[in-house]
Amino acid sequence: MRLVIQANIIHAPSYGDLQIVENAYLCLEKGRIVGIFDTIPEAFEQAERNDFGNALLMPSFGDMHFHAPQYPMLGMGMDLPLIEWLNTYTFKTEARFSDVAYARDVYKRLTQELIAWGTTRVCAFSTIHRESTLLLMEEFESAGLSGFVGKVNMDRNGLAPLQESCEESVSETLLWLEQSKDFKRIRPIITPRFTPSCSDELMAALGKIAKEQDLYVQSHLSENLAEIAWVKDLHPDCVQYWESYDKYGLFGDHSLMAHCVHSDARERKAMRDRGVYVVHCPDSNTNLMSGAAPVKRMIAEGQKVLLGSDIAGGAILSMMGVVAEAIRVSKFRRILSEWQEDFLTVAEAYYLASSAAAEYFGEKPGLVAGQELHALVIDDTKELDTQRLSVRERFERAFYRAQKSDIVAVYGAGKRLR
Amino acid sequence: MRLVIQANIIHAPSYGDLQIVENAYLCLEKGRIVGIFDTIPEAFEQAERNDFGNALLMPSFGDMHFHAPQYPMLGMGMDLPLIEWLNTYTFKTEARFSDVAYARDVYKRLTQELIAWGTTRVCAFSTIHRESTLLLMEEFESAGLSGFVGKVNMDRNGLAPLQESCEESVSETLLWLEQSKDFKRIRPIITPRFTPSCSDELMAALGKIAKEQDLYVQSHLSENLAEIAWVKDLHPDCVQYWESYDKYGLFGDHSLMAHCVHSDARERKAMRDRGVYVVHCPDSNTNLMSGAAPVKRMIAEGQKVLLGSDIAGGAILSMMGVVAEAIRVSKFRRILSEWQEDFLTVAEAYYLASSAAAEYFGEKPGLVAGQELHALVIDDTKELDTQRLSVRERFERAFYRAQKSDIVAVYGAGKRLR
Repeated sequence: MRLVIQANIIHAPSYGDLQIVENAYLCLEKGRIVGIFDTIPEAFEQAERNDFGNALLMPSFGDMHFHAPQYPMLGMGMDLPLIEWLNTYTFKTEARFSDVAYARDVYKRLTQELIAWGTTRVCAFSTIHRESTLLLMEEFESAGLSGFVGKVNMDRNGLAPLQESCEESVSETLLWLEQSKDFKRIRPIITPRFTPSCSDELMAALGKIAKEQDLYVQSHLSENLAEIAWVKDLHPDCVQYWESYDKYGLFGDHSLMAHCVHSDARERKAMRDRGVYVVHCPDSNTNLMSGAAPVKRMIAEGQKVLLGSDIAGGAILSMMGVVAEAIRVSKFRRILSEWQEDFLTVAEAYYLASSAAAEYFGEKPGLVAGQELHALVIDDTKELDTQRLSVRERFERAFYRAQKSDIVAVYGAGKRLR
Repeated sequence: MRLVIQANIIHAPSYGDLQIVENAYLCLEKGRIVGIFDTIPEAFEQAERNDFGNALLMPSFGDMHFHAPQYPMLGMGMDLPLIEWLNTYTFKTEARFSDVAYARDVYKRLTQELIAWGTTRVCAFSTIHRESTLLLMEEFESAGLSGFVGKVNMDRNGLAPLQESCEESVSETLLWLEQSKDFKRIRPIITPRFTPSCSDELMAALGKIAKEQDLYVQSHLSENLAEIAWVKDLHPDCVQYWESYDKYGLFGDHSLMAHCVHSDARERKAMRDRGVYVVHCPDSNTNLMSGAAPVKRMIAEGQKVLLGSDIAGGAILSMMGVVAEAIRVSKFRRILSEWQEDFLTVAEAYYLASSAAAEYFGEKPGLVAGQELHALVIDDTKELDTQRLSVRERFERAFYRAQKSDIVAVYGAGKRLR
């Protein structure tokens, strides 16, 4: 039950700070971290070994907002306007998840690729379909992933095969929650698609369920200006978008709100006051031309920020790629703000993708004794190294350069997943 | 001497237009295209075969602006301000190319990776070093690449080991041109680094050489605002940056000007009038926060535009990645212009990366009979395909999703390079 992993170790115990231990030994007992050592402690001399030589080991990623059923449309339709994109791809793709065999096939492949890229924590939207949602949870859990999955709720403004009545939505949600009781590492999360998709009656019912069963909530907020105007029309009583969730108890501690591109100071204050997390989805915001979220400003204000691939608005499943796009978007934000806002460094964006996700799930950031190991190992030793690069430089390069085949090992919740 | 290549074929004979022939036979004679056929013509029945089944074949890429010696620093230092980045990485990295053995090692690896990503045409800056420049040309030519390489000229405002006197710069350039006479597919191009790096005397001498030896010119133009102000200080007689090249005969037919992020209507008109090509380097412009070039507007005005990786300001060597970033940057441009400017579609950005580069070198865009084949083959058949995707959808997805290992064959100037 003891394991020694040898590699160059990098982790981010606080925002913007990288801790690096070269040629180190990471010791585990029953999947939990004992410590990082320069030499192997006596108690571990006979332990199983995973030696990675000169490779890089770092805590793995949390993809904190994505639409699992959109995996088959990844990287397509990026030239289309939003509504055409939804009609040509999104709704048709999601509608197929009434077919359980189809769902199993897609979710199995998605799970494999998430792990291949070093994503070990997830917060996923499924579709409205209860059975497929349970399948997604099964696939994630049996593969060793941790996190949340939500059956989507949607009783208005959708296409016919993707819409439930309010009664159906509530009863299916309750049945799904009942059937989710035995999952250990993949837990349910209440998931109103977004305000325009859910009647007031449904929102009220979901708020009640979340409260009674002590569940977190995930949804979308202030992604683009047309959506904000639409919500204003639907909820003339609400001064701002967030209040359409708040009034039903769907905007509280650990609520995950994707995007928040156009959240102003008042909306940002409401999020901080209530313990809401922003999930920044840089590639999606670019592809759909939603804008560039003021992430650095939010963090400076004390806002908790996480990262999400948001496939398939985002076209990049790899969180290493999402980190690189988060940096690029923050540089655009710097241009847009006329140099008033700063950009994300690699260390900062990596923190959001790894340590911040661990914190969301109640753990400490970085490789901390007592916690189960979540990590990936990148072998970049085939790369050109004429300059005797530092581990930090190689770490940085990996976010811009790593191919899937460079990720040679992944550990999730203390178990080796590949 | 006859070859039949079977695949799904996509090419871009005009801007924005994709021609697709499914399960086609591309017939070559001595490396030159005979035609694309639904069934194998009788004359080719006994020919050699390269069968790629359901894979995608498309014309390969031209990387029309990059710094070959910066390959070892790819993906590093992206958090640093420009001057610190230059001092920490760029100048130190380039200075090492006085060492010929070092240059050989780096340029061999760079050449391999360019080909692995399907780049078969190049316009590269080397360093000031004549011998290393000749080595780069040898590596490119012997590997089967086509295009231009320029020995960099720089007699002011550089660090000591990277600066020549004006006399040295001229005499070394003349000797390099003499020694380049026997190259067939990689030809020399006159390369003043940029106006701040070259004295008036050197610029005048380079303009004279370009004219006498009938050579094209490559340089940088209007990349960022500080640089533009600097050029204004150095050339108070010039109303705009481009005139500092123009007055020395370095701004004419087929001149390649990288970036042009901040070129206004007057500068853009000067480029069109003189037959100057813009090389758009989207990833570099983002990483260094130079801005978002108005590419769609330039094209609408009749400007010739090419794409470049600009490694290592750019962190992406793959032109498929550069195409995706060009699309993303054009979407930011759309946001910056308050929806006045449109974004690049995949078909448009692909045209710039492939057909436009072929045109620059005097060829016709697309797969045209009589021309030598430049193409790559992408095998995406391991990707999830639950939706019976069209060839066009798979083509589009490849720009967002393809890994290096998915590129299974590359042809340059009629020869199979891998």
